[in-house]
Amino acid sequence: MKTILIIGAGKSSKVLLDYLLEEAYSKRRFIILADNDLAEAFNKLEGHPNGEAVRLDVQDVTLRRTLISKSDVVISMLPAFLHPLVAEDCLELGKHFFSASYESSQMKEMSSAIKEKDLLFLNECGLDPGIDHMSAMQIIDREKETGGKIELFKSYCGGLLSPESERDNPWRYKFTWNPRNVVLAGHGVSRFIRNGRYKFIPYHMLFRRTDLIQFDDVGDFDGYANRDSLSYRAVYGLEDIPTIIRGTLRRAGFCRSWDVLVQLGLTDDSFSMSLPRDFTKRMFVNAFLPYDMMFGVEEKLKRILPWVDDEIMSKLEWLGLFDEEALPLFEGSPATILQQILEDKWRMKKEDKDMVVMQHQFLVKYYHGKEKSIHSSLVVKGENNVYTAMAKTVGLPLAAAVDLFLDGKIKFRGLCLPTLKEIYLPVLDVLESKGIRFVEKEKLL
Amino acid sequence: MKTILIIGAGKSSKVLLDYLLEEAYSKRRFIILADNDLAEAFNKLEGHPNGEAVRLDVQDVTLRRTLISKSDVVISMLPAFLHPLVAEDCLELGKHFFSASYESSQMKEMSSAIKEKDLLFLNECGLDPGIDHMSAMQIIDREKETGGKIELFKSYCGGLLSPESERDNPWRYKFTWNPRNVVLAGHGVSRFIRNGRYKFIPYHMLFRRTDLIQFDDVGDFDGYANRDSLSYRAVYGLEDIPTIIRGTLRRAGFCRSWDVLVQLGLTDDSFSMSLPRDFTKRMFVNAFLPYDMMFGVEEKLKRILPWVDDEIMSKLEWLGLFDEEALPLFEGSPATILQQILEDKWRMKKEDKDMVVMQHQFLVKYYHGKEKSIHSSLVVKGENNVYTAMAKTVGLPLAAAVDLFLDGKIKFRGLCLPTLKEIYLPVLDVLESKGIRFVEKEKLL
Repeated sequence: MKTILIIGAGKSSKVLLDYLLEEAYSKRRFIILADNDLAEAFNKLEGHPNGEAVRLDVQDVTLRRTLISKSDVVISMLPAFLHPLVAEDCLELGKHFFSASYESSQMKEMSSAIKEKDLLFLNECGLDPGIDHMSAMQIIDREKETGGKIELFKSYCGGLLSPESERDNPWRYKFTWNPRNVVLAGHGVSRFIRNGRYKFIPYHMLFRRTDLIQFDDVGDFDGYANRDSLSYRAVYGLEDIPTIIRGTLRRAGFCRSWDVLVQLGLTDDSFSMSLPRDFTKRMFVNAFLPYDMMFGVEEKLKRILPWVDDEIMSKLEWLGLFDEEALPLFEGSPATILQQILEDKWRMKKEDKDMVVMQHQFLVKYYHGKEKSIHSSLVVKGENNVYTAMAKTVGLPLAAAVDLFLDGKIKFRGLCLPTLKEIYLPVLDVLESKGIRFVEKEKLL
Repeated sequence: MKTILIIGAGKSSKVLLDYLLEEAYSKRRFIILADNDLAEAFNKLEGHPNGEAVRLDVQDVTLRRTLISKSDVVISMLPAFLHPLVAEDCLELGKHFFSASYESSQMKEMSSAIKEKDLLFLNECGLDPGIDHMSAMQIIDREKETGGKIELFKSYCGGLLSPESERDNPWRYKFTWNPRNVVLAGHGVSRFIRNGRYKFIPYHMLFRRTDLIQFDDVGDFDGYANRDSLSYRAVYGLEDIPTIIRGTLRRAGFCRSWDVLVQLGLTDDSFSMSLPRDFTKRMFVNAFLPYDMMFGVEEKLKRILPWVDDEIMSKLEWLGLFDEEALPLFEGSPATILQQILEDKWRMKKEDKDMVVMQHQFLVKYYHGKEKSIHSSLVVKGENNVYTAMAKTVGLPLAAAVDLFLDGKIKFRGLCLPTLKEIYLPVLDVLESKGIRFVEKEKLL
C-alpha cells in the first residue's frame, strides 16, 4: 500500500483527488487529504474507502511531519510561499515532492541533496507553469530531432471565460482565478528578445503593445508580454534563439480598455490611500484626473487620454466607475480599491463556465533552407463550477505525474521540471485521453 | 569661546563657513571643519586663525564623539541618511544640532528627549526645505494676523541655469545638483488637494500635468507636483485649506520632452539590465521600442508616442540618443544608464552659472468678502562655480540660524523647523541683506 499525502483541499484539489482515487483501490493506494478546513477535505473525499481527511494547520510542525512520515509521496497544493516548509520536511524524511508552482530559489538550493537522497522533486507541473512546458518541449524536441532549428517561439496562455458566459459582460471577462493577481498582472518591466534585439516594456506601456492571437474555434485575443521571457531560453534549451516571447491572453479589446485604468493610476499598488467615508466611485476616478472648473469626470478623462472612444467609455460605465455610489473600501492602495469594485462586477455566476486557452507559435528552419511555422493551440472549457477548465488543467497534469511515478514509469531522480521527455510524453498522453488536446497547424513558408 | 563643529566640507559648506568665519574673531568663535577629505576641509578654511580642519571618517565613533564633545553646536552637512548618527551623539552629549535636511522619523522619535535636555535641533534650514518654509510662513502668519484666510497655496522651487548659461543647450538644463536625484525626480505618486478634491498623479502622468509658472525677469517655467503636498497642511498650520500644491520647476518645454524618456521607460530604476558590450545609445533606445521590420528608431518613437514633434526630436537628438555610439555603461538600471548619458551632455562648464527660482502663490479671503492673490517670487543667480545659487541658498540660511542662535536671538528649545516666527524673521532679514530677497505682487480680485 502506497500513501499519497495531499496538503491543501482548494479548488484544483478535487480534480487531482478524483483522478488519483479512481484507481486507488486497484493500485493499492491510500490518500490523505490534509487541510485547515476539515469539512472541506472530508466532503471532497465523498466517503471513498481509500481516502482520509485530516485537519492540518500547516504551521503545526509535529502533525505536519507525522503526516509526511506516513506517506510515500507528498503533493503540495498550498500557496507558493508555503512550499519550502513542506519540501524541507520531505527532503529530511526522504519523501518525494510534487507541486504546480514555480521552482523557487529555496528549492534550487536543495537540488544536490534531493539527488543524493534519490528523491524526485517535481515542480511547475500544472497549467502555466506546467502544460506550457510539456507541450512546448514536445514540439521543440521533435523539431530538433528532425534537424530543425527553432528561430522563433512565442507562447501565450490565458484563464478566461467560455464564450457562452462572456455575453452578459462587455469586457468579456470575469475573475476565474485570484482577482488580486489579475489586477496586478504585468507590474514591473516585461523583457523578451525579438529578432535578436532585447526588448523592455515598462508597465505603463504594456497594454498598448499587444499582439493579436487567433484561435480557429474561439476567436481573437490580445496577447501581452509576461515579465521575464529571457530566462526561458535556458529552460527550453533555446539559448541562441533570436525571438522568444511569453505572454498572457485577454479577449481582443480588453487590453486597450484596461490600459485606461493603468494610465489613470488605478492599478497602482505602491501607496495606500485613506479616503473620506463619503467617497464615491466617481470621486475615486476623479482623484486621478486634473482639476477643472468646466468639465466633468467623463470629459476630463477623454481630454487627458484622447484615444478613449465610446467602446471604452461604455466598458468603464458598465463597471460603475462614473457612479455616485459609495466606494466598497476607503483604505488601501488604488489597486486594492479597484479590485473590490471589480470583484462585484466580474463575479462568476453559478452557471458560468471558464475557459483556458494556450497557443505556441514556432518558426523552424531546416539546413536545406526550408522554413515552416507551427501554431499549436489548446482550448479547454470548464464543465461546471467544480470541474472548471482551470481546476482541470492545474490538477490533471499533477495527478498524472504522481500516478505515473507510483507506477514506476518515471525513473528520473532529483529536482526537475516537466520539460523532461520521460515526464511530458506520458503526462501529455493522459491529458489527451481526458480531452486536453493541442491542435497543431503547420505551414511551409 | 564657542566652538562650532561642521561635519562635511561639500559644495554648500564654503558659503556656510565663510559666513560664520567672517565674524568668528569678533564674536569669539572657533570652527572645526571635519571631512573625510582633509585637504578639501583645509583649503576651504583658507588659513583662517579661528578655524581648524580635521580628517574624520564619520563611522569612526571615537573621533566623532570626541569632536562633538569639544563643540557647542554641530552642523551636519552629511548625506541625509547619516544625520541620525550625529544627532544621537549630540543628544547624548548635550549639543545643539543643525541641518538642511528633512526631519527624519528617527529625529522625531528623539523629540521629547531633545526638549528635556534643553537643546535646539533645527532641521530643514536650507533652500527646499528651508527658505520655502520661512518665506511661506512669513506670508501665512502675516495674512492670518490681519484676518485673512488662506484658500489656496501653491509653492514651486527649481535649481536651474542662469539665463546666460542656458543658451548652448536646447533643454535649457544642466545638472546643477545631484544628477541621480534629477533623473529619479517625481518617482512614486504625487498627491495634493485642489478645490477640496484629493488628487493623485502616477509617475507616468506627472510630466504631462504641469502648470505654467511665470517670473517677471526670468520668464516661464513648467511646474510639476511634488510627492506629498498633503503633509504640508499640518506643517504650515493650514489644516482646512482647499488647495495646496508643492512642485518643482523646470524651464518651460522641458517636461514634455522629459516625458518621452519617462514613457519609454528610460527613467525606470526598478530593474537591472545587463547589456552586450557592443550596445549603442541607439540600441538602448530601441530596446524600449516595438520591433518593426520597416521603421527605424525615430519613426517607431513617433508612432508609439504620437505627440512627439520636431522640437522634442531635436532635443533627443542633441542628447545623442539616436547615435550609433557605445553606451557609457552596460550594467545597471535604465535610469543609471540614462544618467551616465546625460551627465556627459548636461555637465556645467566652468563659466556656467546656476540659478535658483522659487514662487509662492496664495489666494487670501477676508471676512468682508474681499479676495486677493499674492505671488511671491525669488530669483537667485550663482556668482561663480563656488558661490553658486544652490550653495548660497542652502548654506546661508543654516549659517544665519547658527549665528543667531549663538548670539542668543533664538530662544526656542526642542526639535523644530524654521516655520517658527522667532527663527524665520531674523533669518530672512539676513538673507535679504545678502541679496536673497522675495518680490511680492498683490492683486485684489
